[in-house]
Amino acid sequence: MSIVSRTRPGRNVNLALIGATGAVGSVMRDIVSTREDIWGEIRLVASPRSAGKVLRVRGEDVVVQALAPEVFDGIDIAIFDVPDEVSAVWVPIAAERGAIAIDKSGTFRMQPDVPLVVPEVNPLDARDRPRGIISTPNCTTLSMMAAIGALHAEYTLTELVVASYQAVSGAGVAGSARLYDEVEALAGDRTIGQAAGDVRKALANKLPAESPFPAPIAFNVVPWAGSLKDDGWNSEELKLRNESRKILGIPDLKVSATCVRVPVITTHSLAVHARFEREITVADAHRVLEAAPTVVLMDDPANGVYPTPLDVVGTDPTYVGRIRQAIDFPNTLDLFVCGDNLRKGAALNAAEIAELVAAEL
Amino acid sequence: MSIVSRTRPGRNVNLALIGATGAVGSVMRDIVSTREDIWGEIRLVASPRSAGKVLRVRGEDVVVQALAPEVFDGIDIAIFDVPDEVSAVWVPIAAERGAIAIDKSGTFRMQPDVPLVVPEVNPLDARDRPRGIISTPNCTTLSMMAAIGALHAEYTLTELVVASYQAVSGAGVAGSARLYDEVEALAGDRTIGQAAGDVRKALANKLPAESPFPAPIAFNVVPWAGSLKDDGWNSEELKLRNESRKILGIPDLKVSATCVRVPVITTHSLAVHARFEREITVADAHRVLEAAPTVVLMDDPANGVYPTPLDVVGTDPTYVGRIRQAIDFPNTLDLFVCGDNLRKGAALNAAEIAELVAAEL
Repeated sequence: MSIVSRTRPGRNVNLALIGATGAVGSVMRDIVSTREDIWGEIRLVASPRSAGKVLRVRGEDVVVQALAPEVFDGIDIAIFDVPDEVSAVWVPIAAERGAIAIDKSGTFRMQPDVPLVVPEVNPLDARDRPRGIISTPNCTTLSMMAAIGALHAEYTLTELVVASYQAVSGAGVAGSARLYDEVEALAGDRTIGQAAGDVRKALANKLPAESPFPAPIAFNVVPWAGSLKDDGWNSEELKLRNESRKILGIPDLKVSATCVRVPVITTHSLAVHARFEREITVADAHRVLEAAPTVVLMDDPANGVYPTPLDVVGTDPTYVGRIRQAIDFPNTLDLFVCGDNLRKGAALNAAEIAELVAAEL
Repeated sequence: MSIVSRTRPGRNVNLALIGATGAVGSVMRDIVSTREDIWGEIRLVASPRSAGKVLRVRGEDVVVQALAPEVFDGIDIAIFDVPDEVSAVWVPIAAERGAIAIDKSGTFRMQPDVPLVVPEVNPLDARDRPRGIISTPNCTTLSMMAAIGALHAEYTLTELVVASYQAVSGAGVAGSARLYDEVEALAGDRTIGQAAGDVRKALANKLPAESPFPAPIAFNVVPWAGSLKDDGWNSEELKLRNESRKILGIPDLKVSATCVRVPVITTHSLAVHARFEREITVADAHRVLEAAPTVVLMDDPANGVYPTPLDVVGTDPTYVGRIRQAIDFPNTLDLFVCGDNLRKGAALNAAEIAELVAAEL
C-alpha cells in the first residue's frame, strides 16, 4: 500500500483537505474520490491527535499529517473544515504560504474582502479574492441556495421567511452518535414521549448527560442551533439572513428564520416563504427549477411526490417540492427544500469552489 | 364494580363522549376525570366494534355503548371525536335529540351557523349556536391559538407565516404505533439514514407497507398532512388559514402555512412569523403572554429555556419561547409554540367548551 499520496503525472494542482477526519472531512474524501479527478497530490491534514491515521482517498491510503505551516508547502488549494477558532489562525497561514484557502467556517464569511460563494449562484465572486480566501456558506443557507438563487435570477427575491428542520450531523459526528444512542436507549418502550420529562428521565439512567444538543433529540424537536446572539436570535438564524444577502447580492433582502433541530441523521430541510418583485406562478417556478442543473424538482403531491430527507440523503442536488402560490401574499411562493448538509451543505460546495479555482490555475 | 355510569346527585348536566376509545377519546376520559367534576352521567359511546368494552372514567368502570340515536336520550352535551363522515351523519342527530353537540371533526367548522370556539379567545361565540352545534378547531391551529389570540387582542394580528412540526399522534393511535414500530425496526443500526432509500429498504423487510404516513417517519420529516386540495395545498394548511381567520374574527387575515410531520409522539410545534398592526416588542409579548392564564412563557435562551415537545407533552398549557422581534419586518415577531395536540389540541379544548356550555344550562 502507498501511504503517501502520489502526484499524478500531468496534473499540477495540489489539494489539501484540512479537517480530513471529521463528519464533513469523510464526505469530502468521498467526493474528491468520485468526482472527476483533476488533482495532483491530495494531502490530508487534521489535528495532531489524528495525525498518523491512514485514510483512503481516490483508492489510495494516505497518512494524515498534523496541521503545521509546512503542510501548505506546494499546495495550491486548501479546503478547511475546522472550528471557527482554528480557521481564524490557520486559514491566513495557508494563504500566506501561497495556497488559495476555501474555508467552511464562519470566521471569514461576512468579511468584505472575502467572497462567499455558491458556484451555481455567484461563481464570478470567487475570482475576486484579494486575501486568497474564499468562504463557503453555512449548511442551512446552502441547503436552499441553489433553488432560491435560480428563482431570484429571474424573479428578484425581496423577502424570505424560513423555518428549518436541521439534521443532527450538522453538529458533527457527535451529533449523529447522540441520536443513535438516544434511539437505542429508548427503543422498545412504547410509552415513551407521552409524559413531560419522561424521555429525560429514561436517558439520565442510560446515557451521559453531556450531549451536543440542549435537550433530548430522539422523539423531539429542539428550537435551537448555534450560539446566542443579540435580542434572542441565535447564530444559525443570523447566518441564514446575512449569508443569503451576501451570496445573492441583495443587501436589503428581508429575512426572518427560526432554526430547529430534528431527529434526522443527515439532510437539512427548510420550509420557505419567498416573496419576489415580479409575479410568479407555480408553473414559472417549475420551469426555472427544472432548468437548474443542480436542482431536482419533486413536486407532484397527487402522487405523493415531495422530497423528504431519507429519500435524498447522500446525494448532491437540492430538492424542491410543495411549491404553492401564497393565497394571501402577492408574488409569493411557499415551498419545501431538502439538501444533504454534509454534501451540498458542506463538502460538495467546497469541492465545487475548488474545481472553479483549479480551472483558472 | 358499577358498569353503568351513575348520575351524581345534585348534578344535572349529562355528558356523552362519542369516540371514547380513540387516541383523543382516551385523553378525554382522563381530562373529565381530573378536572372539576360538574357532570351528572358520563356516557361513553363508540363504534359497534368497540361496544361492550369497559373503560374507566372518574374512577368508575363504564360500558361503552354503540353509536345509535338512543344514546343521546337524556344527554345535554355530546362531544364528538370521530371521522368527518361520521360527524356529518351523527352530529345533527345528537342535536335533533336535544343535545348540544361539540364536534372535533372538520365537517362543520367553516359553516357560518356553527361557531368555532377556543374558550380563551372567543368564548362568547359559543352562545350563538343556532343549530345546537359548536365546532372545535383542528389540532395544529389550536396548538398556537391561545398565544396568538392573546397577542392579537392587544396588537391586532394582520399576517401569519407558519411552519409546523406535527406529532404522529395527530394521525391517531395508528400514527404513534407506526413511529414506535419503525424506531424498533431500525434501532441498533448505526448506519441508517445515511443513504437515500436505506430506511425504506430496511423497513420493507420488517414492517407492513401500509402506514398512516406517506413516507418513513422515523429519522425523517415528511412535508405532508391531510388531503390534497387545490393548487398544491393540503387540507391541514388550509384549515390553519381558514380556522385562524374565523376564531380570531379577522376575515382578511393573511396566512401561509407549510405542514410537516416529524418523529415526535405527541405535541405539535409551530414556528410562527406574526405581523401586527401596532408596533410590538419582545417585552410587550412577554407581558401579554405572562398574563394569559393558559399560556406558559419559556423564553430564556441564555439559560437554555425554550419549549420542546418532550418537556410539555401531557400538560394543558400552550408554551411559547424563542420570541424575537423580526429584524427586517415591521411590527413582526418570530416565535416558537408547543401544544399537546391530544390535550389543548383536541380533548381539552372540547372539554373547556363543554364546561362553558354547562355553566349556562
